[in-house]
This record gives sequence, C-alpha cells and structure tokens, in this order.
Amino acid sequence: MPRIYIKDLHSHIGNEATVSGWVDVRRDHGKIIFLDIRDRSGSIQAVIAPDEGMLLETVAPIRPEWVVELTGEVKKRPEKMVNEALPTGDIELSVRAVRVLGEAKELPFSKDESLNFDTYLDYLPLTLRTKRARAIFTVQAEIIRAFREFYEREEFVEIQAPKLIGEDAEGGASVFEVPYFGHTAHLAQSPQFYKQIMVGVFEKVFMTGNVFRAEKHATTRHLNEYTSLDAEMGFIEDHRDVMKTLGRMMRHIAGALRARAAEEFAFLGAEFPLLPDDIPSLKLREAQRVIKEKFGEDATHEPDLSPQHERWLSEYAREEFGSDCLFITHFPMEKRPMYTREDPDDPGYARGFDLLFRGLEVVTGGQRVHEYDALVAAMRAKGLDPDRFSFYLQAFKYGMPPHGGFGMGLERLTARFLGLENVKEATLFPREINRIDARLSE
Amino acid sequence: MPRIYIKDLHSHIGNEATVSGWVDVRRDHGKIIFLDIRDRSGSIQAVIAPDEGMLLETVAPIRPEWVVELTGEVKKRPEKMVNEALPTGDIELSVRAVRVLGEAKELPFSKDESLNFDTYLDYLPLTLRTKRARAIFTVQAEIIRAFREFYEREEFVEIQAPKLIGEDAEGGASVFEVPYFGHTAHLAQSPQFYKQIMVGVFEKVFMTGNVFRAEKHATTRHLNEYTSLDAEMGFIEDHRDVMKTLGRMMRHIAGALRARAAEEFAFLGAEFPLLPDDIPSLKLREAQRVIKEKFGEDATHEPDLSPQHERWLSEYAREEFGSDCLFITHFPMEKRPMYTREDPDDPGYARGFDLLFRGLEVVTGGQRVHEYDALVAAMRAKGLDPDRFSFYLQAFKYGMPPHGGFGMGLERLTARFLGLENVKEATLFPREINRIDARLSE
Repeated sequence: MPRIYIKDLHSHIGNEATVSGWVDVRRDHGKIIFLDIRDRSGSIQAVIAPDEGMLLETVAPIRPEWVVELTGEVKKRPEKMVNEALPTGDIELSVRAVRVLGEAKELPFSKDESLNFDTYLDYLPLTLRTKRARAIFTVQAEIIRAFREFYEREEFVEIQAPKLIGEDAEGGASVFEVPYFGHTAHLAQSPQFYKQIMVGVFEKVFMTGNVFRAEKHATTRHLNEYTSLDAEMGFIEDHRDVMKTLGRMMRHIAGALRARAAEEFAFLGAEFPLLPDDIPSLKLREAQRVIKEKFGEDATHEPDLSPQHERWLSEYAREEFGSDCLFITHFPMEKRPMYTREDPDDPGYARGFDLLFRGLEVVTGGQRVHEYDALVAAMRAKGLDPDRFSFYLQAFKYGMPPHGGFGMGLERLTARFLGLENVKEATLFPREINRIDARLSE
Repeated sequence: MPRIYIKDLHSHIGNEATVSGWVDVRRDHGKIIFLDIRDRSGSIQAVIAPDEGMLLETVAPIRPEWVVELTGEVKKRPEKMVNEALPTGDIELSVRAVRVLGEAKELPFSKDESLNFDTYLDYLPLTLRTKRARAIFTVQAEIIRAFREFYEREEFVEIQAPKLIGEDAEGGASVFEVPYFGHTAHLAQSPQFYKQIMVGVFEKVFMTGNVFRAEKHATTRHLNEYTSLDAEMGFIEDHRDVMKTLGRMMRHIAGALRARAAEEFAFLGAEFPLLPDDIPSLKLREAQRVIKEKFGEDATHEPDLSPQHERWLSEYAREEFGSDCLFITHFPMEKRPMYTREDPDDPGYARGFDLLFRGLEVVTGGQRVHEYDALVAAMRAKGLDPDRFSFYLQAFKYGMPPHGGFGMGLERLTARFLGLENVKEATLFPREINRIDARLSE
C-alpha cells in the first residue's frame, strides 16, 4: 500500500492505510501496545492488539526512534479518549501489519528531558528531531525562500560567489587561512568584492551562502560560520534606496511567514513583528541622544553601539514608532571599511546603516565608493596596499555606477523572528571555538 | 526624471526619457557624437548634436565603459538607418542632457577582440560584462532557481550545511585543511553527512552551497570550488526512487529554461536537451558491452568510465533512446564510498548511479546504508575508524529510514545545458591550482 502522511489520515477513517515514521513513545498496557508514531507531517497513536503471534514477535523489541511501517484500520477514537492537543488526536491506527525499517539503540536520555545546551549540541542528530527544533528550521527555510523570492521578483540576478579568496581578503584578525598549493588562501568573511564586481555586470544581484569568521570569543551572538544573505544594487541615489528595498524585503518575509509558518510561530510562542511601511531611522548621534535622555547613559562619545544600546533603542522604536525594526545611520567613517561612502552633507560620517531588529543588529549596509581614484585613496588611508586589491579594483577602473547593498545573517534573522536568545539555537550545526560537531579535544 | 530601462523605450517614442548605462562604443562623425549605451535590459544608440557648449564639454572625455545618465527625446530612426539586429534598432535617443555617473580608464583591449582564456580570466570584472558571459550566468541563475522550485514543490525542506568540518572528513588527498584554533578543520567536499542526518529530521531535504576539492590537476572538467546542488530523501524502496525524482527535476529545469531563458539559448546557439519521460538506464557492465560492440574498445575489466566512454555512451543514448541523459548504475562497491548500499540482487555492485548529460557525468547518487551496525562494518571494511565518525553515526544509532540522494555540480550542469567545452566558462570566478582571481605567484 502506498504510504500516507499522518496529517492526511482523516480522509481514511474506516479504511486501511499505511503510515511510516519514528516511534516517539511506547506504552504497554497489559497485552496491548500503544505506539505514538511521528512522521514529517504529524503524529498518531497506533494500537497493537494481543494474541497475534507473528506481530508481537516483531513488535516486542521496538523502542523509541525505531523506524516502522504500520498498516491497519484508521478508527475514530471514543469521545472520552480524544486528545485535543493533536490534530490527529481523534483517530488512531488499529495495526494489522508491522515492518521494521530501521532499528535504534537505547536513547542517551529521555526525549522529554530538558537538556543543557552543550548536551543538546553534543547530540544534534537526535535533538534536532524534536518538534521545537523542526519548527525553528522550518521557519528558517521559509525565511531564505522568501528572501530569494523577493529579490527574484525585483529582477535581481542570483550569483555564486567563491568562498576561497586570495591575498586580497579584507583582512583583520578574524580571517581563517587555508594552505592552497604552496600559497595561502583565506575563507571569505563576506561576498562583498564579488557582489560589487557583479553590479558592473547585472546591475542588481543577490546571493546566499556561507561566510566565515575566526572569532575567538564565544557569545550568544557570534558564530564561526554562518549563512549570509546579500544584495547589491546599482544606479542608486544614496544609501536610502538600499534601505527602502530592505524595508520592503522585511515586510515580504514577515508576510510569507504569516502565510506559510503560522503553525510553527504558534507552537514556538513567537509573535509576528511590527513593521510599519516606513521603518524609522536615526543617525547614530540622534540614537545616542535618545539613549542619554531616555535611558540615562551618556554614550555620545562612542563610535558604535553596545549590545545594551541596541536593546534600548529597539525598545524605544517599538514604543515611539510601533516598529520592531530601526535603522541607525551615519556611523563615523573610521569605524567602517574602506569601500564605505562618506556623506558629503555630513562629513566624517558614512552613508551607511545598521538595521536593529528586536534588540539586535541583523543587517549592515550602505552606499559604496564607486570611483576608482577615490577607492585607491580610501585604501591608502586605511593603510591597505591597493596592489593587493588589483582584481577587485578592475571593476572600478572600467566604470561603475553609484551602488550599495547589504549583508544579513540568516541565523540572527531567524533568532530575532522567533525570539530565541541564542543564535546557535537557530543554526543547524553551529561552529564555535571549542566545537565542530563534536567538542574539540584540549 | 525616473530612469527607464532601454528595452522599454519603445513606449516613449516622441517623448523625453532618461536612460542610464555603460558606453559600449563611441563614434565621432564630424561634430556629431554617437554613443551605444548598454544597460541590463538592452542597448541603444544615443545621438549628441553639436554646438551645445556645456554638453560637449561633458561629453568630450567619455570613452567605453564610462557610466552615464542620458536624457533626451526617443525618436524613430529613418527607415534606412534601422539596425535589424537590435530590438531597439529602430529608435535612438536624441540627447539633451548628460550626467557622468562613473568614469573609466582606457580599456586593456578592444571589447570585440577575441581573448585567450587566461586573459579572459585575468580581467573577469571587465570580461564578464560581455553579452556572452551575461547570457551564460543568466541561464545559471535560472537553473539554480528551477532546482529549488522543483524541490520546494515536492515538499523537500531547504537546509544550511556547514562547510567547515572536523576530523571526520570523508578524507582522501583532495581535502583542504584549515587551521582552526589549534586544531585542524577541513573544507567539505560535499554536504553528504549533514543531508543524511537531516533525513532523520525532515525526511526530505535539499540544499545549495559551495564545496571544495583540493584537485591538483587542471582540466576543463575540474574546479577547486564549485556550487553543489544536493537532495536526500527518506522512505524510499531503492535507488530507483531517487533516479525518478532526478529525471523529473531535469525536465522541470529544462522547461523553466525554455520559458525564462529562450533568448539566452538562442544567442548562445544552445539547444534544449532531449529528455524522454523515462531516462534510459544501463548497468555499468551493460554500458561496457555497448562500448565494446559499438565503439570497439574492451573496457569490460574497468571499474569506472573514462571521459571518452562517457562521450560514447551519450552518443549512443541519443541515437538509441532519443535522450541527452543516461543513467549508469551498479558500479563495483570498492569504487564507491562507505555509505554506499550494495544491491542484494547483484552482490558486489552498488545501488547507485551516475547521470551522464551530453557526454559528461553531472550527477552522482544512490541509496545509502541506513543500519548502524552495517555502516560501522562498512567503515571498518574501508579502513576507517568509526570513532572518528561518531557524530554522523548518531543519526543511524537512533533510527534512520531507508534513504538516498544525489549531488550535482551547478557549473557542469550549466556547461552541459549550453554546450560549453570548459566548465570554467560556466563559473563566475573559477579557482584553479594556479589562480585565485589573480594568478598565484610562483
């Protein structure tokens, strides 16, 4: 018999059906065995009656996480036995035949035990099977899908950016090195150079892919590898054109999640964000005045925001503007990379922005320098040797339009949509200083 | 005035319009200057008349690849001056105002010069701007889009697989090492382990992302980094279930390209493939008999196909079955990785396949071992220490269904769809032993 998904069993009441899945729970009541069976679509109680010799022999060793195929009659449960908590709680499967598809060893802990986070990470191939983890990564799949959907509709072209990059890495301490046939390559911290080069080809491009940061500190906000969602667009007036597309993208993603992941949001107790048509925007100096006036800390001399500042400003944006998102613009030029464009109307400050989302920076972007001579000068001013960037510089040598873009971490975005404290909860297989899947030995 | 794409100028004949783009060609005819302007949508001739002082001063230095914004009247060209080769060949822009958006230095070669491939690669930020390169990578974007579209419709869940992997890499000489905080990490050659683990979570998964091969040989078929398109599915009967979904996927991609990239195919002189409902399939031994009988080479003792064999078999499949695709199944177990499932009906041979597409292997896949004890034994038989794979093995220890999947190189697939001889022509920024963007110094 063809396999039927558990969520579709209602249309088979009174008939035979075959389901396949994992055993969640086994309960023996005298000679009757109850198995809660889980597949990708839901779960259902299977009832195996006594005195059917062959069947009991097959069923005897079955434990949690065994994979089985069950054939039997789909029956309505007596009124008193209905489990209101499950969509399939009003039916059960009266099993006639059992086939074991995969055996399992004894589990290292009970499935409803609450685990400390390190144990959760130690056993990801098992712990990712919980309803909670499946809900989180279903939402993540919908976010990246909605991201691409938005930029495809806007006629951006998807590109594939390499991760192995040469001597022309942006540099800094947080770059991984890779021995490369007698030379040294690096792992890209972002697809920055390639997306800018490709604006010279397609005008508007987007991409999704892994990026790498050799961060030595372990926090709830940092990862050594994450999925970056990037877009870059030409023929803009200034950074506000990038902010506008980004605002519409956030609303598109939120709309897609409402339409396609409402069940997961409900299960996780997550709320859809407040996203007004115009996302509010403050210059860093204005934001610092807000912090001083509303929260009593004088950070007006700082070149950047602290995590606490980001939380305060998000609180302020929600109260003042009814928005879970807030742009902070015009950071001081000395804190931004060499390709950052200065605002001629506000010298010393960048035509760039961060996007705060529910207390955390999730996007960084802005307008870029597009004139060759200015970019070479900007490199020199940062102490960088333009000769090391000659490949990248070709794009500018041979004509580039005004352009800008942004990069966004998929895991941070997922965590903020779902209100998860630790970004690693929104990362399937997080890389940390002390862990690549298994803990690294001392 | 808002910018109008060149392809949309027909609806503005007799009116003023503003276009922006790159200068393809400049021709001075006496005092009249003709500029061919290119944007992402097309190109058009702009005419700048004499004796308008300010304008000429701005226009005087303009050369190929300068980026300009032009405002003027859209005019029908006299019948005799129509350029039939261009969709906008019947109109021109009579320019009133010019704004320079980006300057360009003198080009290193004329744009219609035919370049040797190394020079093409040396100057990618410029050479990718040709119509040919833009057509190739537009097709590539449509292929990856159609791949995801197909598996989303089939309810596969997208996952993000890490590229930095630990000591439990599949191994072999062709793995890049990465110093990782006093330990050694590796760059993934495929998302194999993660997609199998995630079958235990979502049953059906797909992913797209970069993978890395430290190949020391430079050929037209190999890359040191490429984009891998992967899918993995649970609750299959055998490898033929995977082959079926793959066949439907190929037809979906071909259909999407017909619908969305017909113009690019026409420009590149590429033909849409012949893809029958059932893609023909031969066991390796049957394929070797065909080679012996039809092409006169006795390769029946070989454990694999050579590039020449792949070309012959594709030729045979086209003639015999009217198909540009051909599955080759049942390679000897000793040539396949430890997770490969043996066919119980054909001992010594794998429930696995390669897909040949127009003379080249573009996909490898098959059914996997899903029983813990059998997988541990298979590792030992290949001389691998199961302790090094303990994270991956958890998935099997705690219950896995029969499953299988495949991996496919986006660049090879693009090259085969378009009939490009060198896979590097279908790679935006190819990594080779002697090159990462720039040539590596000796």
